[in-house]
Amino acid sequence: MIKVIAFDADDTLWVNEPFFREAEEKFAELLEDFMPQHSSLKELYRTEIENLYMYGYGIKGFMLSMIETAMRISDRKIPLIFIDKIIQIGREMLEKPVELLPGVEEVLKELNGDYRIVLATKGDLLDQERKLKKSGLADHFHHIEVMSEKKEADFKKLIRHLDIAADEFLMMGNSLKSDILPVLNLGGFGIHIPFHITWEHETIEHEIIHERFFHVNKISDSVKLIRDLDQ
Amino acid sequence: MIKVIAFDADDTLWVNEPFFREAEEKFAELLEDFMPQHSSLKELYRTEIENLYMYGYGIKGFMLSMIETAMRISDRKIPLIFIDKIIQIGREMLEKPVELLPGVEEVLKELNGDYRIVLATKGDLLDQERKLKKSGLADHFHHIEVMSEKKEADFKKLIRHLDIAADEFLMMGNSLKSDILPVLNLGGFGIHIPFHITWEHETIEHEIIHERFFHVNKISDSVKLIRDLDQ
Repeated sequence: MIKVIAFDADDTLWVNEPFFREAEEKFAELLEDFMPQHSSLKELYRTEIENLYMYGYGIKGFMLSMIETAMRISDRKIPLIFIDKIIQIGREMLEKPVELLPGVEEVLKELNGDYRIVLATKGDLLDQERKLKKSGLADHFHHIEVMSEKKEADFKKLIRHLDIAADEFLMMGNSLKSDILPVLNLGGFGIHIPFHITWEHETIEHEIIHERFFHVNKISDSVKLIRDLDQ
Repeated sequence: MIKVIAFDADDTLWVNEPFFREAEEKFAELLEDFMPQHSSLKELYRTEIENLYMYGYGIKGFMLSMIETAMRISDRKIPLIFIDKIIQIGREMLEKPVELLPGVEEVLKELNGDYRIVLATKGDLLDQERKLKKSGLADHFHHIEVMSEKKEADFKKLIRHLDIAADEFLMMGNSLKSDILPVLNLGGFGIHIPFHITWEHETIEHEIIHERFFHVNKISDSVKLIRDLDQ
């Protein structure tokens, strides 16, 4: 019997990764005089991964990584005004309206009442609260779980905190690496809902075949699946 | 009967504000050629408060605010290397060792088992997890509650999430404004433990007189107080 259904937030409930791509493109264009665009994107990704242990996920860390990358690849020769422009790119991301993905609201309405529904995200708490508020979906969620990482140990803590057994937990999300694999390994259920863009850091190479793993093409297909599972 | 005791983290369990002061001083020194130190500190504070709604609390937002302030007060004339130096100031803050305040560990040991003990902080989740890990105190806490703000509505959500009544909740912390007042207003208990430095944004002007409000000079005095309260 499934008791808690956790939803990933970014690119599961609402659009997120495309905004990062858009920001990266603006960044690369800005620095074009110093480095070809595809190379500066690579450098930015390298900086982000190097800083992950210190900055974690979210837009503020991304802004700092853009600034650091711009300094490095220009050999500290960018005009100072570029720093303003980079900060502006980040601020625009922070103030983006929330674009709900199709079917999300209906699925939440359908499942609510029968399950405790939580939001499980590794984004920044303030950002995610703001997005949840803007989304109009807040009433469907029991609470937000912000996780600094989505590895096995983090889900273990989450499940313990929810006071349930692992096989009473179902996670839905767009990242096989972060939303699905660790949950399956702990004994929970995972439903993968693909999104058309995935951050390189979130991709995995192999296919998953597992008795508690399911894949739907769109979120609205998940309701019947969960009802069937939970008989 | 008190069921949950929540501890604030920064400047209640471990040293924090002095590191911000240290960083602010380095920042003001760096910009001395452009503005007298006390003025640039004021400008920095203004930027932080203006950005709070967007960046929230924590070191990454502070870093971005330092960069923005430096750009503004120098009229975009600082040497680019100053941006590196500011980022360095922030990174050093992120990598600071954890300095436990006296008595903290004993109090947690003493209370643990009799109460559910949580960490309630509005810092950045990743930072606070890192500090908790470094502190060696993690085993004493049931879990971390990261709050984007510590206003009444936020504590209300927290208490609901903990599944207890407000008068079963006791909060301990160094900020009257953030740790104590909202909790008293909701019907919970508050114990104030002063710290020698308080961020301007966290200060209040008036005295608190309330039947569920208590003040101790040092954290180790809180155990007897709680035992007496809880009879």
